[in-house]
Amino acid sequence: MEEIVDIRYPVKGFIVIKPVGMKAIKKLYNLFENELEKNNHEPVHFPAVIPEQNLRKEEEHFKGFESEVFWITKAGLNELNEKLILRPTSETAIYPMYSLWIKSYRDLPLKYYISGTVWRYETKSTRPLIRGREFLWIETHCAFKNKEDAYKQISEDLSIAKKIIRDKLKIDFIMVRRPRWDTFAGAQQTFAIDTLLPDGKVLQIATTHYLGENFAKVFNIKYVDSDMKEKYVHQTCFGIGINRILASVIHIHSDSIGIVYPSALADGIVIPISEDVVEKAKEIAEKANLKLDLDFSKTPGERFYYWDRKGVPYKLVVGKKEIEQNFISVYRRDGKKYNIKDLKELENIIQDFDNSLFKPLKIVNVSSFEELKKALDQKVIARACFCSVEKDGTDCYNKIKQELKAEVRGYRIDIQEQPEGNCIVCNRKANHVVYIAKQY
Amino acid sequence: MEEIVDIRYPVKGFIVIKPVGMKAIKKLYNLFENELEKNNHEPVHFPAVIPEQNLRKEEEHFKGFESEVFWITKAGLNELNEKLILRPTSETAIYPMYSLWIKSYRDLPLKYYISGTVWRYETKSTRPLIRGREFLWIETHCAFKNKEDAYKQISEDLSIAKKIIRDKLKIDFIMVRRPRWDTFAGAQQTFAIDTLLPDGKVLQIATTHYLGENFAKVFNIKYVDSDMKEKYVHQTCFGIGINRILASVIHIHSDSIGIVYPSALADGIVIPISEDVVEKAKEIAEKANLKLDLDFSKTPGERFYYWDRKGVPYKLVVGKKEIEQNFISVYRRDGKKYNIKDLKELENIIQDFDNSLFKPLKIVNVSSFEELKKALDQKVIARACFCSVEKDGTDCYNKIKQELKAEVRGYRIDIQEQPEGNCIVCNRKANHVVYIAKQY
Repeated sequence: MEEIVDIRYPVKGFIVIKPVGMKAIKKLYNLFENELEKNNHEPVHFPAVIPEQNLRKEEEHFKGFESEVFWITKAGLNELNEKLILRPTSETAIYPMYSLWIKSYRDLPLKYYISGTVWRYETKSTRPLIRGREFLWIETHCAFKNKEDAYKQISEDLSIAKKIIRDKLKIDFIMVRRPRWDTFAGAQQTFAIDTLLPDGKVLQIATTHYLGENFAKVFNIKYVDSDMKEKYVHQTCFGIGINRILASVIHIHSDSIGIVYPSALADGIVIPISEDVVEKAKEIAEKANLKLDLDFSKTPGERFYYWDRKGVPYKLVVGKKEIEQNFISVYRRDGKKYNIKDLKELENIIQDFDNSLFKPLKIVNVSSFEELKKALDQKVIARACFCSVEKDGTDCYNKIKQELKAEVRGYRIDIQEQPEGNCIVCNRKANHVVYIAKQY
Repeated sequence: MEEIVDIRYPVKGFIVIKPVGMKAIKKLYNLFENELEKNNHEPVHFPAVIPEQNLRKEEEHFKGFESEVFWITKAGLNELNEKLILRPTSETAIYPMYSLWIKSYRDLPLKYYISGTVWRYETKSTRPLIRGREFLWIETHCAFKNKEDAYKQISEDLSIAKKIIRDKLKIDFIMVRRPRWDTFAGAQQTFAIDTLLPDGKVLQIATTHYLGENFAKVFNIKYVDSDMKEKYVHQTCFGIGINRILASVIHIHSDSIGIVYPSALADGIVIPISEDVVEKAKEIAEKANLKLDLDFSKTPGERFYYWDRKGVPYKLVVGKKEIEQNFISVYRRDGKKYNIKDLKELENIIQDFDNSLFKPLKIVNVSSFEELKKALDQKVIARACFCSVEKDGTDCYNKIKQELKAEVRGYRIDIQEQPEGNCIVCNRKANHVVYIAKQY
């Protein structure tokens, strides 16, 4: 982790991200932004500050965030007439503008996204990239004519997550509907993407919320439909936790040497063994569009180790033997070695490397509270029949939380599952198959 | 401008940037970041908040910024023990870390950059993208062994600016050394890139500062040189005003229809005239890697106008005639029209369009105060002999400022010029050829 972040910044919960981390973050942003734009989202910029009265408009939302925001009370030498908050999320910054922008059904769907920073005054102990007071993310804010269109967006959000997080980053996850008691402040339903870190705790890395007409009513976001009637829009928002996704990659893929990046997050490097083969190496670097390591003050071993620690997925090595026999040595980050005649051969080697990183989530079926307890000690996610993720299930949830320090994460929406049996806590009829785990 | 920004956000000086602006801003960031990385700068993330005591460390710097920053005094329900500021620039956030990171001459040069937002409590009247309380920029922070290396960096900064701002964005500029009285708080010398907007005012769009050993001494950034002696680093920082560069493009290139983007800032669009030619249009869009306009609810004329207003540099149009006769119509944003058989022909047509946007700065030589006065009414930059940009020239500067509401911008460093004559204000021997203009 110390290759990625420096936690010595003198404000609690705020960290510095070093180049090895920031380069991967830039690639993460590009991957998600390109995929969002392919799906007709467009980028916008919204201010980092929100006037207090905006935040206060949606009551549940205000209650949820009041104790979690940083307050700006002074500017220059003057006290501000109206306090500003540093955005903890941007609903209350954006939706007043949506009420100005959206007039007619022709303006819908409206699908905008912000890439940027948000700030939350977390009181729990902070942990680099996982829980901090400043984090990097993407948030989309979409408005639709009706509930059906909004739900299609939630499927699209899931498919974007699959394409990037599972297929490119090789991080397995489940997408669950969160229980009522874990729903975003102001939303009707929250859907979340959870992965499992090697220490046995799940990490929420993205969420998408169905806001219904709730914010639309508060912020007066109405449109005239083709039937000439005025209606409220239905809204969704999708938050992609860039910091936490990077944390997952680091914690799940790293080995005893250091970081292991999939090829989507880091480029390879070209290493000429000695100065007399630099020309050839330059040629290869140019063709492959890669950077060149020209640090001959270190031994080849030291140079290999240097790049391995930083997570570079493969090294193209050129020495005298390679030039004499007209091949390039490929050293993969997992220790495998290949000789290639042509750079075209690289693609399969890299793809195979990426695929080798994928490990399915450890999920264990449990059919009693005792089994649940045992499973949680095995650092896995438990799968169980559960009475209800609505209010009705609160007592069972509390028992799991208090006795096992674990959380009911919700039921899956990326696959369909029917409960067969009764709730493992209260033994009433189960309405859901839920996933239970310790969490960050 | 209303295609680009919405100024109705309810906090003074904070604006919303709409997709047509934000897409161009994303391209601007990519252009500069790629060029910085080619020149061995690396990206880092630093927090948006700085503890008050860091800001206080460099006295001149604190004096310069004290009345210009937003203060965070409260978090959640608690008053903070130490107030935080929203960064107005990042020297005092970054340099304490540099003193931890830099130990030996082997760690130098250190060339990092941040892409992000800064906040300044501007008291003057704000103006969208030109003067605001929140703006998007890039700041590089470099540390070197000595003054010579630092000065080479300043040349590199200039050459990066030329490559992007002049060659790609087609915005002409001068780079000047700012007079002593306009030097960045805490810097030894400030070099600035100024362009001229059509209303006759110059706009500073980037600055690069030679900080000398000043901050290094305050923040204790020392290295052990190869001679085993401990030395202070020499520093430079380069601020690239993304908002203001976009403002320059808008103000300088736009016409009576709307925005005119050079091809570096916006893609073309493919327009099938009717639904029966969509297949062919799709094929072209895919080959050219462009988006497709499929809005047949509007007339072709309305669709052309729609994209023209948004600044799209060219439209590839496919109708029945085009399909029958096997060509593509290219409508350039400047009204010129071409028929092409092959997409390869597009490159020259676009390059020619970009080149046509370039207009050299209007600079007029003046040899007396009277001539200066007249020139400033002509909406140009005046070029004049001037006594001194050091303290010694303050009276002459004040006279120009008070009587003509204009500023001495400094002497050029992108070309070499020798003064021939005396100062146009005090008639003493001129030490410099300076550029004088009204400013934003």
